Amino acid sequence: MQDTSSVAGEESFRVRKLEISDKAKGFIDLLQQLSVCDSVSDKEFEDRFQELRSYGDDHLICVIEDDGSGKIVATGSVLIEKKFLRNCGKVGHIEDVVVDGSARGKQLGKKIIEFLTDHARAMGCYKVILDCSEDNRGFYEKCGFKKKEIQMAKYFT
Amino acid sequence: MQDTSSVAGEESFRVRKLEISDKAKGFIDLLQQLSVCDSVSDKEFEDRFQELRSYGDDHLICVIEDDGSGKIVATGSVLIEKKFLRNCGKVGHIEDVVVDGSARGKQLGKKIIEFLTDHARAMGCYKVILDCSEDNRGFYEKCGFKKKEIQMAKYFT
Repeated sequence: MQDTSSVAGEESFRVRKLEISDKAKGFIDLLQQLSVCDSVSDKEFEDRFQELRSYGDDHLICVIEDDGSGKIVATGSVLIEKKFLRNCGKVGHIEDVVVDGSARGKQLGKKIIEFLTDHARAMGCYKVILDCSEDNRGFYEKCGFKKKEIQMAKYFT
Repeated sequence: MQDTSSVAGEESFRVRKLEISDKAKGFIDLLQQLSVCDSVSDKEFEDRFQELRSYGDDHLICVIEDDGSGKIVATGSVLIEKKFLRNCGKVGHIEDVVVDGSARGKQLGKKIIEFLTDHARAMGCYKVILDCSEDNRGFYEKCGFKKKEIQMAKYFT
C-alpha cells in the first residue's frame, strides 16, 4: 500500500477500517488470540463483512496492519447503540480489542482505543463503554476510562 | 386491549414489543426512573422509534403495560451484535431495564429479562450480557446470569 506520508516506524502502524482482503492477512488468526474462533470460511467472512458494512458507521471494525510483514496485528470494534434514554442518546460499545502477541509494547492497543473512542464521539455518543477483565483495568484507565459497573453474562452454548 | 387468554392478574402483565403509542402511556417517564431523560418531543420519539424499527429483530425494546391503569410499568431492550469471533457469532446486549417503583414485587423485571433472553437465544446468540450495579447482581443471578468482567466507561458529556 503506497502512502506518501509514510516516513518512519510510527507511520507503519496506522489504524484503518477493516477491508475484505484482511482475512488473508491473518485477521481471523488474530481474533483467535482473544477467544474461540475457528473455521470461518471465505464465504462466511464475506457474508458477515457485507452484513456489517450495511450498518455503515453504526458498526465500525478497525485494524492495524504491519506494513513490513503485511499481517494484521491489532483490531477492535465499536457498535453504536441508539437509545431513548438521555434524550434519545447514543452509546458506543467497544468490543473485541486484541493486539498480536508479537507486537506488544508499541502502543497499538492505545491507538485502537483512541480510534474507536474518536469514532463514538464523532457519532454523537454521550459515552463509550466496554467490558474487560480486572487484569486489563489498568490499561483502560490509562486510556481515560473508569470502572463503573459489573458485567453479567448468560451463555447458551 | 382484548385478549381471550386474559383470565387473571397474571395475564394483565404480559410482555410485548414497544409501540409508538407508548410514549403517551408514560414510557419516557418510566425511563426517567433509570437515568437522565428529559424533553423528548413527539417528533424525536417517532424518529428514533422508526430508526430502531429499521433494525428489525436486531434491536428489540419490550414493555409491560398495566392494563388497569394503561401505563407502561416495565421495559428493557436487547441489541444483537454480530461478530467475527466465535465463528461469526452473535451476542445479545441487554440495556435499559427498569420497573416502575409502584409495580415492584410482581416479578415484572424477571419477565422482561426472560423475554429479552429468549429473543437473543432465538436470534442465534451464543450469549447474552448486561452491565449492572453490584446491588442488582443478586437479581440477575436469580435470572441465571453470572458475573464475568468489569465495565469501564468514558463520558464525553
